[in-house]
Amino acid sequence: MKLFGYWRSSASYRVRIALALKNIDYEYEPVNLLAGEQKSDAHLARNPLALVPALKTDEGAVLTQSLAILEYLEETRPDPSLLPHGAAPRANARAIALTLASEAQPFMNLRIQQYLKSEGGFDDEVMKQWLNTWPGGAMAAVEKMLARTAGDYSIGDTPGLADCFLIPQMFAANRFGVDVSGFAKMNEIYERCQKHPAFEKAHPDNQPDAVKG
Amino acid sequence: MKLFGYWRSSASYRVRIALALKNIDYEYEPVNLLAGEQKSDAHLARNPLALVPALKTDEGAVLTQSLAILEYLEETRPDPSLLPHGAAPRANARAIALTLASEAQPFMNLRIQQYLKSEGGFDDEVMKQWLNTWPGGAMAAVEKMLARTAGDYSIGDTPGLADCFLIPQMFAANRFGVDVSGFAKMNEIYERCQKHPAFEKAHPDNQPDAVKG
Repeated sequence: MKLFGYWRSSASYRVRIALALKNIDYEYEPVNLLAGEQKSDAHLARNPLALVPALKTDEGAVLTQSLAILEYLEETRPDPSLLPHGAAPRANARAIALTLASEAQPFMNLRIQQYLKSEGGFDDEVMKQWLNTWPGGAMAAVEKMLARTAGDYSIGDTPGLADCFLIPQMFAANRFGVDVSGFAKMNEIYERCQKHPAFEKAHPDNQPDAVKG
Repeated sequence: MKLFGYWRSSASYRVRIALALKNIDYEYEPVNLLAGEQKSDAHLARNPLALVPALKTDEGAVLTQSLAILEYLEETRPDPSLLPHGAAPRANARAIALTLASEAQPFMNLRIQQYLKSEGGFDDEVMKQWLNTWPGGAMAAVEKMLARTAGDYSIGDTPGLADCFLIPQMFAANRFGVDVSGFAKMNEIYERCQKHPAFEKAHPDNQPDAVKG
């Protein structure tokens, strides 16, 4: 299969972690967001919303949306599983992923931040408050969810789907200045994952399109 | 099982459609968002992010996030299924749901609109542009996705998971003045669903906490 992504994109990072945890080999084709390649005809045919990632399967289907891609990988390459046993624990894993995907990440996406500055007139102070209210607030809720579900990782002691979302969220929060110092469990899991080979392989800095410095 | 929701909440509406399509009986406990009941200790124990819906299962687990709840229902009450046959078509259904859940709905949520007005200084004109750029842009992308997947409903000719997200999104877009006139397929599916008994049962106006007028 072939992944179309960008080194620093949170959603691309999620899929890379899942592919690494499942030991799936894949081709990688960078889509340079800074150069606007996501708006090329070739990429719009993959994703009409001009977002990364997209995954081309071995059968030629092109899939979008990171969580939909992860569920596809889980269905077609079930071993090792990214989800715990039991329907309710699986719902908890998905709820953590979705809280980050729909309540944190959208509000800190770079194109949204750029729009809020250029069209909405946000200055640095208002932007900082926005980031800490919405992405920060969603992350605070996830910290409370983790108090019920986490062991060494987000759900028990095995890395999985929720961690595929948590680690890129922490990475982006640090990048954009969201204060994560109060999130003890999330920081603990984040540090642990930095030493895990699958997470290390998936890290933005270790991608072929990474820009150093 | 018991659903905690609010008549006009898009995410509550999604879960109500799924429960109706699956013919699942449930108790309903309204959480009055206008009265701030989502911030009560009782509700924060269900969802630390103070959002609806939450679903209490027959076993006593409390689940959050509409898509996580739908996947739980699909796993525990598989018949009738809300997902098509085949891993790639299922990924397409989830991608439509996720595009609406993470790229459209977050930017038109009432608490976000209120914040943009009060803290961000958005006037009516800037808000209209915001709504048509981000939720409207995501819906335009879904219209293109539907051109590949839809029959009478979002995926083929059977109502399912993607429709559970599409119909509340259309309802909210109409409520908040997003221009949906160019989305022919979405309008066609929306009209069809208005006549479907499960969608009718789940409609905001038909809930016990609906405010008429």
